[in-house]
Amino acid sequence: MRREITGFSNPTVKYLRALRDKKARRREGRFLVEGLRLLTDARASGRLPEMLVMAAARDPHPLLAALDADVIAAGGEVVVTTPDILGKISGKDNPQAVLGVFAEWRTGLAALDRDAAPIWLVAQALRDPGNLGTMLRTGDAVGAGGLILLDDCADPFSVEAVRASMGAVFTQAIAQARWDEFLPWLLSGKGQLVAASLRHAVPYRGAPYQAPCFILVGNESRGLPAEYEAACDLRVTMPMKGRADSLNAAIAGAVLAYEVLASLD
Amino acid sequence: MRREITGFSNPTVKYLRALRDKKARRREGRFLVEGLRLLTDARASGRLPEMLVMAAARDPHPLLAALDADVIAAGGEVVVTTPDILGKISGKDNPQAVLGVFAEWRTGLAALDRDAAPIWLVAQALRDPGNLGTMLRTGDAVGAGGLILLDDCADPFSVEAVRASMGAVFTQAIAQARWDEFLPWLLSGKGQLVAASLRHAVPYRGAPYQAPCFILVGNESRGLPAEYEAACDLRVTMPMKGRADSLNAAIAGAVLAYEVLASLD
Repeated sequence: MRREITGFSNPTVKYLRALRDKKARRREGRFLVEGLRLLTDARASGRLPEMLVMAAARDPHPLLAALDADVIAAGGEVVVTTPDILGKISGKDNPQAVLGVFAEWRTGLAALDRDAAPIWLVAQALRDPGNLGTMLRTGDAVGAGGLILLDDCADPFSVEAVRASMGAVFTQAIAQARWDEFLPWLLSGKGQLVAASLRHAVPYRGAPYQAPCFILVGNESRGLPAEYEAACDLRVTMPMKGRADSLNAAIAGAVLAYEVLASLD
Repeated sequence: MRREITGFSNPTVKYLRALRDKKARRREGRFLVEGLRLLTDARASGRLPEMLVMAAARDPHPLLAALDADVIAAGGEVVVTTPDILGKISGKDNPQAVLGVFAEWRTGLAALDRDAAPIWLVAQALRDPGNLGTMLRTGDAVGAGGLILLDDCADPFSVEAVRASMGAVFTQAIAQARWDEFLPWLLSGKGQLVAASLRHAVPYRGAPYQAPCFILVGNESRGLPAEYEAACDLRVTMPMKGRADSLNAAIAGAVLAYEVLASLD
């Protein structure tokens, strides 16, 4: 279906604006993706938006035309509107010329196949959506299976997380769970839980990593709860040559993930 | 000197608010640091604010009292004000209870002592102040000497960069230069310039790193200009197992920096 929206007061505009807010995303089970590049990444990963919203253009980009055709063919909706209305939806003065609405997918642990990849990233109470998106992107790069979000994390479907993931939100599996669901799930099969730690730890270089290796990073300001650290199969320590005693969470996860990748290869 | 400010229209409030803006920071040569933790890091690194601004408190934190005493002893100014005015200055509903104004320091290449550290981080046209601050924090962790910012980078003295640096803005040297100043400076002494690259590159694990090693990362969306890559002494490649062909700039820099650290140790 194809339709045009020219009025700011159109209910679809209100609906789209609301999706910038986490509560509305939860209620609707939908999220926004902005920009042709991310939408093309999604398409290449087999994910199409239910609704494609774009500014009217005389001569659209070939990738946009392809997206448009695929959305229509899949029974989705294409909404043509004005740059001003796109700006109102995205809250930016210079909005991307296109955005899409995707249905969220299920993010339970049950959907994960732990044998599908040698590395999994696990984040506990990660609050920064940029860090979260960056971890998805790193996961893609190291060939991880996905990202498991423990306890109260930022929303992986927020505009900022999706953007920082550079499309990896569409390729990495994403699970959300409480610690007391995660631990029994982990123990029910193969899997080594590894955390960067200062206590009872071995050097991260040359540590005995085993696939599937679950790399656990903690909250940006508090780190991991002691109880979580204690439950790990392996605690590793990274050199800290300066005054600080910790790295940014996404950085720590990435340095560890590349070390595990080299070790398992 | 100690004084009290109770009115929103006080010129000092206007001055402090303006320091959130890059142009005002350049004009004044001053920047804002928010929060007791960062201010204490600064103090531990031998840097005191010219002006300390805090909410009136009956029973101040001992670290705040120590900071207060040091600022007065050094001839600085302590301003006591209301939480509302602090909120207006920081632009937040829940402002930190204290902030400081620091004089910026010189950030020329001439101030760097390349023999002072085995690793230096170099960023080209890095636009995200959070990435910039994270690179400073990583530099602190790997024992780097500092961060060299090439071409048009985000402002290392912005509130966001300072916060993401977790205090490393006070311990890492910072230099700002154009590429055509940097390259002659680099060639005038010892130093290996290394970049992550897809072209003419060797695997990053076990590459022949040499101190002082200058690790160069490029702009978040465009990467490094080909000319800059070509000028490197060593181009290394990191595994990319997924769909994407690049990492977040701060992540790439960190994974490389830890590899160089292990190699040189």
